[in-house]
Amino acid sequence: MSILIKGGTVLSSTGSVRADVVVEGERILAVTAPDGWAGQADTVIDATGKYVLPGGIDGHTHMEMPFGGTASVDTFETGTIAAAWGGTTTVVDFAVQAKGSSLLSTLDKWHEKADGNCAIDYGFHMIVSDVNDGTLKEMDACIDAGVNTFKMFMAYPGVFYSTDGEILRAMQRARGNGGTIMMHAENGIAIDELVAQALSEGRTEPVQHALTRPPELEGEATHRAIQLAKVTGAPLYIVHLSAMQALAEVAAARDTGQNVFAETCPQYLFLSIEDLAKPEFEGAKFVASPPLRDKEHQPKLWQGLRTNDLSVVSTDHCPFCFVEQKELGRGDFSKIPNGMPGVEHRMDLIYQGVVGGELSLSRWVEVTSTTPARMFGLYPRKGVIAPGSDADILVYDPEATQVLSAETHHMNVDYSAYEGMRLKGRVDTVLSRGRVVVDGSGFHGGRGHGRFLSRELNQYLN
Amino acid sequence: MSILIKGGTVLSSTGSVRADVVVEGERILAVTAPDGWAGQADTVIDATGKYVLPGGIDGHTHMEMPFGGTASVDTFETGTIAAAWGGTTTVVDFAVQAKGSSLLSTLDKWHEKADGNCAIDYGFHMIVSDVNDGTLKEMDACIDAGVNTFKMFMAYPGVFYSTDGEILRAMQRARGNGGTIMMHAENGIAIDELVAQALSEGRTEPVQHALTRPPELEGEATHRAIQLAKVTGAPLYIVHLSAMQALAEVAAARDTGQNVFAETCPQYLFLSIEDLAKPEFEGAKFVASPPLRDKEHQPKLWQGLRTNDLSVVSTDHCPFCFVEQKELGRGDFSKIPNGMPGVEHRMDLIYQGVVGGELSLSRWVEVTSTTPARMFGLYPRKGVIAPGSDADILVYDPEATQVLSAETHHMNVDYSAYEGMRLKGRVDTVLSRGRVVVDGSGFHGGRGHGRFLSRELNQYLN
Amino acid sequence: MSILIKGGTVLSSTGSVRADVVVEGERILAVTAPDGWAGQADTVIDATGKYVLPGGIDGHTHMEMPFGGTASVDTFETGTIAAAWGGTTTVVDFAVQAKGSSLLSTLDKWHEKADGNCAIDYGFHMIVSDVNDGTLKEMDACIDAGVNTFKMFMAYPGVFYSTDGEILRAMQRARGNGGTIMMHAENGIAIDELVAQALSEGRTEPVQHALTRPPELEGEATHRAIQLAKVTGAPLYIVHLSAMQALAEVAAARDTGQNVFAETCPQYLFLSIEDLAKPEFEGAKFVASPPLRDKEHQPKLWQGLRTNDLSVVSTDHCPFCFVEQKELGRGDFSKIPNGMPGVEHRMDLIYQGVVGGELSLSRWVEVTSTTPARMFGLYPRKGVIAPGSDADILVYDPEATQVLSAETHHMNVDYSAYEGMRLKGRVDTVLSRGRVVVDGSGFHGGRGHGRFLSRELNQYLN
Amino acid sequence: MSILIKGGTVLSSTGSVRADVVVEGERILAVTAPDGWAGQADTVIDATGKYVLPGGIDGHTHMEMPFGGTASVDTFETGTIAAAWGGTTTVVDFAVQAKGSSLLSTLDKWHEKADGNCAIDYGFHMIVSDVNDGTLKEMDACIDAGVNTFKMFMAYPGVFYSTDGEILRAMQRARGNGGTIMMHAENGIAIDELVAQALSEGRTEPVQHALTRPPELEGEATHRAIQLAKVTGAPLYIVHLSAMQALAEVAAARDTGQNVFAETCPQYLFLSIEDLAKPEFEGAKFVASPPLRDKEHQPKLWQGLRTNDLSVVSTDHCPFCFVEQKELGRGDFSKIPNGMPGVEHRMDLIYQGVVGGELSLSRWVEVTSTTPARMFGLYPRKGVIAPGSDADILVYDPEATQVLSAETHHMNVDYSAYEGMRLKGRVDTVLSRGRVVVDGSGFHGGRGHGRFLSRELNQYLN
Repeated sequence: MSILIKGGTVLSSTGSVRADVVVEGERILAVTAPDGWAGQADTVIDATGKYVLPGGIDGHTHMEMPFGGTASVDTFETGTIAAAWGGTTTVVDFAVQAKGSSLLSTLDKWHEKADGNCAIDYGFHMIVSDVNDGTLKEMDACIDAGVNTFKMFMAYPGVFYSTDGEILRAMQRARGNGGTIMMHAENGIAIDELVAQALSEGRTEPVQHALTRPPELEGEATHRAIQLAKVTGAPLYIVHLSAMQALAEVAAARDTGQNVFAETCPQYLFLSIEDLAKPEFEGAKFVASPPLRDKEHQPKLWQGLRTNDLSVVSTDHCPFCFVEQKELGRGDFSKIPNGMPGVEHRMDLIYQGVVGGELSLSRWVEVTSTTPARMFGLYPRKGVIAPGSDADILVYDPEATQVLSAETHHMNVDYSAYEGMRLKGRVDTVLSRGRVVVDGSGFHGGRGHGRFLSRELNQYLN
Repeated sequence: MSILIKGGTVLSSTGSVRADVVVEGERILAVTAPDGWAGQADTVIDATGKYVLPGGIDGHTHMEMPFGGTASVDTFETGTIAAAWGGTTTVVDFAVQAKGSSLLSTLDKWHEKADGNCAIDYGFHMIVSDVNDGTLKEMDACIDAGVNTFKMFMAYPGVFYSTDGEILRAMQRARGNGGTIMMHAENGIAIDELVAQALSEGRTEPVQHALTRPPELEGEATHRAIQLAKVTGAPLYIVHLSAMQALAEVAAARDTGQNVFAETCPQYLFLSIEDLAKPEFEGAKFVASPPLRDKEHQPKLWQGLRTNDLSVVSTDHCPFCFVEQKELGRGDFSKIPNGMPGVEHRMDLIYQGVVGGELSLSRWVEVTSTTPARMFGLYPRKGVIAPGSDADILVYDPEATQVLSAETHHMNVDYSAYEGMRLKGRVDTVLSRGRVVVDGSGFHGGRGHGRFLSRELNQYLN
Repeated sequence: MSILIKGGTVLSSTGSVRADVVVEGERILAVTAPDGWAGQADTVIDATGKYVLPGGIDGHTHMEMPFGGTASVDTFETGTIAAAWGGTTTVVDFAVQAKGSSLLSTLDKWHEKADGNCAIDYGFHMIVSDVNDGTLKEMDACIDAGVNTFKMFMAYPGVFYSTDGEILRAMQRARGNGGTIMMHAENGIAIDELVAQALSEGRTEPVQHALTRPPELEGEATHRAIQLAKVTGAPLYIVHLSAMQALAEVAAARDTGQNVFAETCPQYLFLSIEDLAKPEFEGAKFVASPPLRDKEHQPKLWQGLRTNDLSVVSTDHCPFCFVEQKELGRGDFSKIPNGMPGVEHRMDLIYQGVVGGELSLSRWVEVTSTTPARMFGLYPRKGVIAPGSDADILVYDPEATQVLSAETHHMNVDYSAYEGMRLKGRVDTVLSRGRVVVDGSGFHGGRGHGRFLSRELNQYLN
Repeated sequence: MSILIKGGTVLSSTGSVRADVVVEGERILAVTAPDGWAGQADTVIDATGKYVLPGGIDGHTHMEMPFGGTASVDTFETGTIAAAWGGTTTVVDFAVQAKGSSLLSTLDKWHEKADGNCAIDYGFHMIVSDVNDGTLKEMDACIDAGVNTFKMFMAYPGVFYSTDGEILRAMQRARGNGGTIMMHAENGIAIDELVAQALSEGRTEPVQHALTRPPELEGEATHRAIQLAKVTGAPLYIVHLSAMQALAEVAAARDTGQNVFAETCPQYLFLSIEDLAKPEFEGAKFVASPPLRDKEHQPKLWQGLRTNDLSVVSTDHCPFCFVEQKELGRGDFSKIPNGMPGVEHRMDLIYQGVVGGELSLSRWVEVTSTTPARMFGLYPRKGVIAPGSDADILVYDPEATQVLSAETHHMNVDYSAYEGMRLKGRVDTVLSRGRVVVDGSGFHGGRGHGRFLSRELNQYLN
């Protein structure tokens, strides 16, 4: 089964060329000058006037994640289908170690959840919430099992929180085995105190979620994580960076050549504390951690994407329905499940940065696909239109328009954080390992198509 | 005429893939999975065990450049042949406006020198040494003529030096017309004073060249150029950055998202003031400006290449023979012609950074080819192995070894700055626009093959 | 003749004590606990409820300064009388070397102007506008003559401007002889270009004075001066710092321990570009260089005074009448004489910082008197209430109020830059070397009382 | 009873004057020009050729401090006598809240220990080790009781350690009541992990104390404390700063005008990790926290004293005998009591900085006396030679020499950290509140002379 994608502009992280792409089976066989293919093709996709780019890689999703008695509402099936609709052909989700359990049994459990259910390829990061001798040894085994990124939390005491001593130990292990430590960098200990004060003073509405998590405490934790990484020599990847204070710390460390990387998310680029302050508990829809910030942070984050101090855009997709889930926090913002939906809209939203002059076309490809592929050890299998690579391809129509809405999105959640937002650009066709899963006539993929990706190490390490 | 390069590892600025490359005429027709080409090829080049990468782009050369009554000794013919031997398939040389002459007549003159004489493709930057209303208008015409990078000097008062007011005017024009200002950033006014003092005190040996040009005065001028660029909004490219003080200024500006870029050169990475201090006038071989620095600057420069605060490695190739040319400065270091040979060795020398763990393989390609192509508006025609691109291809043998020497190099100069240096890696085969110009049997190109490149604007501008 | 100042609160740069001050002749004989003086006194001044502090030292005035065919309108007599009215008992004025003349003859000339005419003590800085071998040698002689601070200009090409080479030479000399280089840090070469452009485009009103002197060009020159000082090892004092960019450069240098100091002036703390933009040529009253800045700079300057990155407040008093003098620039802002009146109001204006919570009481004393005394080699003769010190004493009433106006001020100029401004605090009594020159009944001093101060070296040098 | 100190050079934090000092009872009655005193004196002290300066204030001592079953060996009596011998006339010691006890009962307990036993005046800081609602309220009462500085620990988990949440709460309280938070800034959680690793790997010798407490972890904690102070608005004073990384954090915060202050100690200026590495357990004598650092930190600390990023020199005097106390840690460095003797030598050691050109004479006075007085709310009662101030006076002989040794020192400890060190300068005469307690004939003070100092708030707050 071969496919020829003809007439399009093929995008990479360095620029664009007019070229045709030949797919044979699950892989790209060739990239040729227009009309340059000497062979046959079973199917021809006309990409005239369209961009042909590597499928998106969302390095931060939480499908069916247990959270305080409930769970995020997208299953691996619904979540990966929504991703595919949005031009994302790979997700890296998080296996979540429960205290007292082992990493490998956790990984088994997540394989059970995902295997046979995903519509696109997927990998796992491992959330380490119980650092002990056993866990540390298992980190090596995880790496052998294709999971070499270990997320830790400086937030959420009593839940995922690790002490600085535990972080130090995990970092020492990562230094030795090649793993990368991913960090949720907020000072949860200080934040919990501010939360308790707010509640005791009757400040209970959703906006308090942001007011009790000031950006200085994200900057602080980011600095601390960087110093621990420096002491141990471990690579560090800051997840969902939201505050300019944290960005400044990352930039300073990167200037010295330290192996420090960071991602941000569309919600921090497009939404703000004003959304959290919406009346009648509407703000609950926007509760995620770190919280949405004042608008003044947004241009700094775009700038960070340009300067490469922010290298990746992921979604931190972690959807909870407004009804019954977000509502758990009426009268107590601290009980609102933390998380927002977003896996479907990342490619479109960041493309708005191109439309608005914030990013170049090649930078769009880089932060949404090529860099995640390199950062998470998937390149050149993913993240590039190149011979031998998986045929994960997005044909994108730069001139089409669309309006985001819960009415029309495919995520399994009852609201959209971007309800009514009008966008330029739209997904036209999506291939996942050579299979057309989305085109103008609808969704043609399905659960079970997606395969687990055993990942190599971070390719950015100095 | 078609060529198939088979079995190699194709390198790009983001990584490597096993792939075959199909060349048809002057261009790349296709890149395919191994053995994936369905068509025919007239010639097959076996690249097994070798790297296949885009030919090098040297963005800073001075062929047959007039300098104080003499001229640099490589002609466009000899210099471009030497470049080809070293795996470089494009040079961007400098047309030099003489005071009182026009930019366009200068360009004509340089076309006359180069046209029909180059063995590989070439473009021009324009040295602006006489800023006036006429010159400023001509900048627009130069851009139309494919020359959109304008070099100015904060050094060399009375020769190329421009005042801050003149720089300001040229920057304002560049801001308007899309050009990029290239800057030789050394405080020449202060330096001339130090030079005069040295001479009057009888300090005349070559090492004084460095001692009278302290790194602080490169850092100062770099800061000044950045501020003038900020005031005017012009893009700025710092040429031949040699000092960590200057690097710090560039890094600080880049952190703010300003359009500031910088290159360094192999001599600053591998040589030092100790070479300048060699006895018996031997140091004269190493006289160039900015001068070779203390060794402590070298690791900072490598780091800058990793952090992308240094984006490009060029050579500043400007060879003067030791005999009769360098010797003009016996007894007065200020009379030693400024410049060193290097166009032939850039790819090899920077590859030593890969061997030594300073840079990744993809970063080697990026700083020597892909980024110069994007920075100087040649991408994707140059700087990448992609369908439709010019077939400027370097097949590189990573396991071979060689020893650098004036005995064996092809530059038209009577010494090597790296005499006796043992290297790992060696050029195997070089294609220039589809023609095999270098292979194991020798040089097969020749003058006249190289064509002038009308360049687009800098692709990195925010 | 002895005086006892009783019942007041004696202020110093470190705090305050309730104490009496005994003056004998021209000097302070003793400071005692309240009622602690065992001896007699001819006169008793009741300072109950008042502050007793060292008389102000204004380190930057321009009396009867030649400027473009005219001259600043305060003579040494009128200007020093106005100073005394305002609680300032020492001024350090600038002798201005004309091109082609010698430093010592310049100094003679200024002695001629000032000697016998001043109402308070005075010293001189030397403006060096013609650097040559003779001048450099004369710098040593100036130091012997009690003038060890040499002001140079990076602004005003063709007038006072020195090249970076000339600055370098003067700094080298200062490094050797203990002098301090004072710098007017604005990039005059670039500014002149912007001025010419404004005029050629018909932008001629006073506000263009600020728009053609952007703060980045003050920051740039400040950085450059600091680097030249670093290369040479000379102490550097930045005069009339107005822009936060320049302040950042000073702060960065001071963090490294370099001998870099800076002053600001009341006009930069209280006035802004909005004053320059006043209609009907009213803005001309506010033309001085560097120009008044956007208001956002003001809180940064106050902060700089708190952090000691700004160590001194001087006035840059250089008054030109609106009528006939400022009016020279109608239709061409570049012809407006540069300078503003202010010597009379410095103590009062900076006291408003105390009233407004910007500075502590001791910091008020420090920036207006103690630090200038130490910086300019006058301490402990001046700048402190201590036995043996000159009895230059200001009794200040912190509760009184006043309104500034040209109607009531004593400067010889036809307008006030602070017309109608209501202040808290007022000068009560002023002693100059033991003589009551100002009290509630009027002015009792006079020309000839003031003596030339041969100054020691800067006491802050590391 | 009156004393006249004649013929000396009276030093202050701003300079020096030739003056006589008249003491009446416990206070200074007058400072006069030489021979200027009109009254009588019972006693005359000839200070010809000597410096007369305010007695030293040591803001950081630990007399008879309980520590792991033992206690520091200087009692309030022996420790304050040693202080007096060394020219220090005030100490501020630390009351130590035990977990579960109240602040006020702690204060009572420390009053019990000290009252009637001290030879010089003394105050208390309060170590807060148990933050709860009761403690927080008691902070207000402590302030009323003259104790407004509250020390917290980011080190020593399980002992004095406070969590970031507890620190936040205490800082909020300080913000409200005017107190200053003093911080032991080391990341104790991470350090304890490194200590455990060292011990488990058999690295047990004293030098491991430093190797398990890397300077980055002092820098980290300093940054964290600064951010918590920023979030809460509390003043922050970093105690015993030892690492250049921490200094850089303090300097950066101070540049922004934040109320952040820091002290260092003589041991960090003169001793290094090389002392800790002395063989045969000799290194145990130098175990204190933070640990002695590599020598490269020393010039940075001297520079910090010059730039005022380090404002105070205290001793952290906490002596444990080598025999039986330090020896508790043979075979396990973590059991070595933390602390070094030093209260006696601070004035002499810092004077070596004057001798060596590191500090000016006035800066010596400032960092050892005037600034501590202002920082700890004792000025002008202490810290200055001024009428009305306590007659705490040090007559210092700048030309005498001495050799430090346990044989001759007066501290109650069996070793000297500076054994055999030869110094220039020596204490001549010491007055404590008007009483000559030390002179050439010996010690004339005694327990019970020293009184408790109820302190005002920090006078440096912006």
